[in-house]
Amino acid sequence: MSADLAQLVTSIAQRARAASLVLATIPTARKDAALLRLAELIPADSTELLAANARDLADAEANGLAKHQIERLSLSPAKLEHLAESVRQVAALPDPVGTTLEDWTRPNGLRIRKRRVPIGVIGIIYEARPNVTIDCAILCLKSGNAAILRGGKEIFHTNTAFAALITRALAETGLPADSVQLIPTTDRAALNTLLKLDTLVHCIIPRGGESLIRFVAQNSTIPVIKHYTGVCFVYVDKAADLAMAENILLNAKTQRPGVCNAAEQLLMHADIAAQALPRLAAALVAKGVQLRCDPASAAILQKVPLAHAAAAAADFTAEFLDLVLAVRVVPDLETAVATINRDSSGHTEAIVTEDSAAAAAFQLAVDSAVVSWNASTRFNDGFEFGFGAEIGISTDRLHARGPMGLNELCTYKYVIDGSGQVRT
Amino acid sequence: MSADLAQLVTSIAQRARAASLVLATIPTARKDAALLRLAELIPADSTELLAANARDLADAEANGLAKHQIERLSLSPAKLEHLAESVRQVAALPDPVGTTLEDWTRPNGLRIRKRRVPIGVIGIIYEARPNVTIDCAILCLKSGNAAILRGGKEIFHTNTAFAALITRALAETGLPADSVQLIPTTDRAALNTLLKLDTLVHCIIPRGGESLIRFVAQNSTIPVIKHYTGVCFVYVDKAADLAMAENILLNAKTQRPGVCNAAEQLLMHADIAAQALPRLAAALVAKGVQLRCDPASAAILQKVPLAHAAAAAADFTAEFLDLVLAVRVVPDLETAVATINRDSSGHTEAIVTEDSAAAAAFQLAVDSAVVSWNASTRFNDGFEFGFGAEIGISTDRLHARGPMGLNELCTYKYVIDGSGQVRT
Repeated sequence: MSADLAQLVTSIAQRARAASLVLATIPTARKDAALLRLAELIPADSTELLAANARDLADAEANGLAKHQIERLSLSPAKLEHLAESVRQVAALPDPVGTTLEDWTRPNGLRIRKRRVPIGVIGIIYEARPNVTIDCAILCLKSGNAAILRGGKEIFHTNTAFAALITRALAETGLPADSVQLIPTTDRAALNTLLKLDTLVHCIIPRGGESLIRFVAQNSTIPVIKHYTGVCFVYVDKAADLAMAENILLNAKTQRPGVCNAAEQLLMHADIAAQALPRLAAALVAKGVQLRCDPASAAILQKVPLAHAAAAAADFTAEFLDLVLAVRVVPDLETAVATINRDSSGHTEAIVTEDSAAAAAFQLAVDSAVVSWNASTRFNDGFEFGFGAEIGISTDRLHARGPMGLNELCTYKYVIDGSGQVRT
Repeated sequence: MSADLAQLVTSIAQRARAASLVLATIPTARKDAALLRLAELIPADSTELLAANARDLADAEANGLAKHQIERLSLSPAKLEHLAESVRQVAALPDPVGTTLEDWTRPNGLRIRKRRVPIGVIGIIYEARPNVTIDCAILCLKSGNAAILRGGKEIFHTNTAFAALITRALAETGLPADSVQLIPTTDRAALNTLLKLDTLVHCIIPRGGESLIRFVAQNSTIPVIKHYTGVCFVYVDKAADLAMAENILLNAKTQRPGVCNAAEQLLMHADIAAQALPRLAAALVAKGVQLRCDPASAAILQKVPLAHAAAAAADFTAEFLDLVLAVRVVPDLETAVATINRDSSGHTEAIVTEDSAAAAAFQLAVDSAVVSWNASTRFNDGFEFGFGAEIGISTDRLHARGPMGLNELCTYKYVIDGSGQVRT
């Protein structure tokens, strides 16, 4: 049984590798044709898709999943139409493959071009969102990569129905049917096999909770691009415009508190804390935010008085993903930077200041993927960057950092043109 | 004891992380000053360095190492002068850090800049070459990275002496002394600890034999950039200029057979095999190359007659690193491409042809880091590319592929300038 499973996964990877070599050379128009066919098939096949989804929803209910969890699993005709539209949008994006990134000629006459090419075979490990199968498949396809998808068991029937539709769109438009394959089991042993196939699979992208990502990172011999969530900081400098600071803080904390680029902590410059913190805190509390304060900020809010709690040590490195904000007072910009570089997750940080030298010092020294000056942390996002799509937001440093769009799903190769040169 | 070792390595990594945050913001002139001081210290301290090296050489002799292995370990005043010169050369290279890679403004007015920054902390695991400690230290330093070095036991005393010298150069020029640290033991347990410190160390580069690289790749939870050796192919097309093909083949196979970008296999187009192979084979045999032939090429050489051996199956995927060349006849370019994509290691391949369409098809479809047209495979090299230095030749696809110079030792971050923008 386990040997069968290993053989099955290996065979999937071998076929993905073969498909990837074909995909890497296929012109843009043929990839787009497959995407547009898929966009047609999604609403056309809505009955089957919704029936498969209904099976997952019934299982979820039987297994006692919470209402908001079940809601996350569910499809609807409107959601399918939205999904089809996102497929058309990816088809309309420029093809990243084949772009010349650099082009130079050596003194010996060799012309060297650095050319963007697909990574090859990408394994995507994800959990229970029904749109991920389509999202990942289309981004991999557009960027010329073969995809091996391994979704969560809660959404297995839905994923299987989507995968069948993708295979149909590929076959109908003459692309390799193995370009996108779903592992037809959620058995952990299959995942373990996949994570060791480093001669066939070139990159693993885990999408989901921290424990899934950690499991993948610890068990994979294939390079992993991790998408951990964020502990993002907003530093309000002594030279901040307070109206702007309030606006940015409210947006960063409350617009969508459950996402990775939401703010989790406020650092307040001591010189203006007594004046500014009551105003900022009042605005946050009015939006339902619970403040977890260090002694200095607590002392200020106590005087006002304004609702707040004493922070525990763990709050200063916590990702709340909720209407909770840790608050600390710092004596200067240097301490703000050092605090961030020690306690943040390196995802996204913001400084609010009218002092351009302070902003430049902050942007130089803060070691995070995105460092914003006078803008919400929420802009660390592929769409907001203008990438047109994103497969996630990388918290790694190698290969891709921050929003990962189509370009980041590619690598490069060097193409050298000579006239008989040899090395001496 | 083992707990002490783990604590020691963890402390090294923590100090490296702290040093990396300082290094990332240090101006070019200060990094160069440290490098130039090191270049002075190497010849000035030659007595101590050669004494340390003599201890390693004595151990090597006592342990019965072969003469060529001992030769690889040995330093001399001339080698030290050469090493000092390489340090001066790296100091003279442009600083990769801080370069703006992209710069655009979004419709909402946000200006986004993609800026090259150091990776952070890089762990380099290597074996017995005495120059690697200096080479890796200076490339990491120039690119603003902190380095943790773990060398082989055969060269331990030499490495320790070099590391002391680097620390002195750093201290004398006011750079963090922890910017470059040597793990002061070759105990495997220390390496195992290092490979799991993924919150402190951002990248591992193993340099050495395949078994070392494999061990590191399988045991590291830190991203690894692998530098496997190469199984490189030369394909002689039916439209090849035979004089050029002979020149390129001889260079690729015999100029330095023990390196990763040397050719290991010849694919010969069937249409010209009967005419061309005897000539090419005679030139190779005259240079002492042993040919391991498939039946088709053997049949041709039998008629000439010319010395050759029948290839075993393993020869067609072998890295000989010696004056041995596998030879096969292929019916067409498509088969050449498919053979390479199946049997090569994806390092470097070359086509020899006067047909530009054939060259373009080959360069499009061959899935290797470097694909050359009418040039020797030996050009896959950081110096030959004009990078001025290289830390190795990556056989990975993510982050760096092919020659890795200073730019490839960097990642990027996004710096956003706003005027109060929030997400709606």
